[in-house]
Amino acid sequence: MSIKVLFAASDTDWQAYRTSLRTALDDAGLDATLARDLPPDEVDYIVYAPSGGLRDFTPYTRCKAVMSLWAGVETIVCNETLTMPLTRMVDPGLTEGMVEWVTGHVLRLHLNIDHALARQDGRWDRHVPPLARDRPVTILGLGKLGHACAKALSALNFPVSGWSRSAKDIPDVRTYAGPEGLRAALSSAEILVLLLPDTPETVDILDADALATLPKGAMIINPGRGPLIDDEALLDALDRGHISQATLDVFRIEPLPVEHPFWAHPKVTVTPHIASETRPVSAARVIAENMRNCEMGLPLEHLVDRGNGY
Amino acid sequence: MSIKVLFAASDTDWQAYRTSLRTALDDAGLDATLARDLPPDEVDYIVYAPSGGLRDFTPYTRCKAVMSLWAGVETIVCNETLTMPLTRMVDPGLTEGMVEWVTGHVLRLHLNIDHALARQDGRWDRHVPPLARDRPVTILGLGKLGHACAKALSALNFPVSGWSRSAKDIPDVRTYAGPEGLRAALSSAEILVLLLPDTPETVDILDADALATLPKGAMIINPGRGPLIDDEALLDALDRGHISQATLDVFRIEPLPVEHPFWAHPKVTVTPHIASETRPVSAARVIAENMRNCEMGLPLEHLVDRGNGY
Repeated sequence: MSIKVLFAASDTDWQAYRTSLRTALDDAGLDATLARDLPPDEVDYIVYAPSGGLRDFTPYTRCKAVMSLWAGVETIVCNETLTMPLTRMVDPGLTEGMVEWVTGHVLRLHLNIDHALARQDGRWDRHVPPLARDRPVTILGLGKLGHACAKALSALNFPVSGWSRSAKDIPDVRTYAGPEGLRAALSSAEILVLLLPDTPETVDILDADALATLPKGAMIINPGRGPLIDDEALLDALDRGHISQATLDVFRIEPLPVEHPFWAHPKVTVTPHIASETRPVSAARVIAENMRNCEMGLPLEHLVDRGNGY
Repeated sequence: MSIKVLFAASDTDWQAYRTSLRTALDDAGLDATLARDLPPDEVDYIVYAPSGGLRDFTPYTRCKAVMSLWAGVETIVCNETLTMPLTRMVDPGLTEGMVEWVTGHVLRLHLNIDHALARQDGRWDRHVPPLARDRPVTILGLGKLGHACAKALSALNFPVSGWSRSAKDIPDVRTYAGPEGLRAALSSAEILVLLLPDTPETVDILDADALATLPKGAMIINPGRGPLIDDEALLDALDRGHISQATLDVFRIEPLPVEHPFWAHPKVTVTPHIASETRPVSAARVIAENMRNCEMGLPLEHLVDRGNGY
C-alpha cells in the first residue's frame, strides 16, 4: 500500500512528530510519503492540528480521512469544507497524563499542599487534613478521560460521583445524567473536576446557578475546556467565598491574556494548558494504525460524530 | 469483665480521645473505668503516648499491656521499666492518611506543581511533565505503610521499587533486601520515599554514600522518621545539585527549630509532622478490641518485638 500523508500542523509539531510518525508508519507496514507540502489532489490522509493554519479542505479531493492530533475537535468540527471522515486523538499517553494531573491536583487541594508550601517560615503549624473517604469528588464528563480519573480517585478512597449527558455505569462511582442529575452531582462536590467536551450544550455549564448549587467552600479543577465555565460568575463566587479555590488549565482565550483577573486572583491557580498533551510516540502509533485499518477496508477508529461535536 | 484503663498521654490527647475511647470500650462490651489518674497497682491497661510524661512503669504491677497511641515506639521500646507487653498503633486511618500524603507529594514533585504555583505572573510557560510510567519511584520500608504506598503508586503507573530489611513480595513492585539490594533500589530512584522505622540499623541510612548512589536530580520524601537522614549530608547534596528537592515531614528534633537550615532552604519543603496521624475514632476502636481480645485470653495484636525495636 503506497499512501501520501500531509502533515498539516505547526513547525513545532513537525519537530515533535516527524521521527515518531515516520517510525510508526514504517512499523505499520505502510509505504507512506510523509511531507508538509504535497499536491492537494494527491493527498490520502491529513494529520491535522489547528496550529497548522489549514482552513480549506476543498482541494483535498481524494483525502480518505483527516486525523486530528488533538482530542478536542471543536475548532474544526464545524468547518463546512471538511467533508471527509474526521478522527480525534485518543492517545493512551494523553489519558495517563490527564489521570496524573487530575489526581495530583485533587490531592493538592485535599491535603492543602499550597498552605504547606507557603509556610516555610519556621512556624510548626499542624493541620492534619481529613481522609479522602470524607472528601466527596464529582467529575463532570465520563468519557475516556473522566472515566479513568474517576477510577483513579475512587481507588484512593475518595467518594466519587460522575455526571454525563447519557447515563453511564462505572463500578464504585455514583453516576448521574440529565439536568436533575447535574444538580445532585454538584450538590455534594467538595472538589469538582470538569472533563466535558466543548459543545453548544456544555458552554457555560458552570454558570452562577451551577456554582450556587455547589456546597460552600467547594474547589474547582478545570482541565477540560475553557468555555465550560462562566468566568465572571466564577470570579464572583470566589470573591464571595462560596467557592474557595479554582485550578484552571484551559481558557476561552489561550494563552490566557496577562491582564485576565484569573492570573492575579489569590484563589485561582492558572496552569498553561498542560494537564495533558498528546505524546508523539504513542499518538503517532495510533494514527499509523488507523491509516492501516482504513487501507485494509476496516472502519476508522475514534471517528468524530458531527452531530455530537466530538 | 471489669477493667481499669489508665490514659497516660497529654491533655490534648485526652481531649481528642476521651469520647472515642469511652464509646469504643462500651462497644467492645468492656466494663471499663477510663481515667487519667488511678492507683498504679489497680491499672489493667495503659493507653500511652510519650506526651504524657510517664517514664517509670515499675508501679504498674498488674498491668497486662501498654498500648501505644503512636505507630513509632522508639522512645519507649528501650525503657527497662516497661516489662509488660507493648503494642503499637496500627490504625487503618493512619495508613489511608499516609497513602494520601505520599501519593500527593509524589505527584506534586512528578508534575512540578511548585513551579506552576510560583508562575502566576501571566507567563504562558508550558512544560508538560513526563508520564508516571517513565518516573521510577523507590520506597525504603515495606511495612504496612510502605506496602500500601507502593500499591497506590504502582496503580498510577509509576515503576515502583521497594527495599526492606527482610525480603518481601508485592505484585507489580520490584523488591530488594539487604545491603546490595539497597544500592540497587537507590540507584534507579528519581523519587525516593522513606518509610522505615527508627531503629539502630536505620539511623542515617540516607548518608552521604546512599545519597551519592541516587541518580543526579533525585527527589526525596521523608514521612518516616527524622533520624533516617544524615541532615548535613542531605544539605550538602542539595547544595551541590545532586539532589534536587527534599520534602521532609519528620525531624530529629520536633518541632524543627526555627534556625534549622531546612526551613529556609529553597530546595527543601518542611511539613510539620502531618503526613499521617492516628485518628481517634478508628484508633480507639483498635485499642478497645485489643483489650477485649486480651481479656478473652486471645493473643494481643500489633505486639512490639523488642529485638527488632518495632
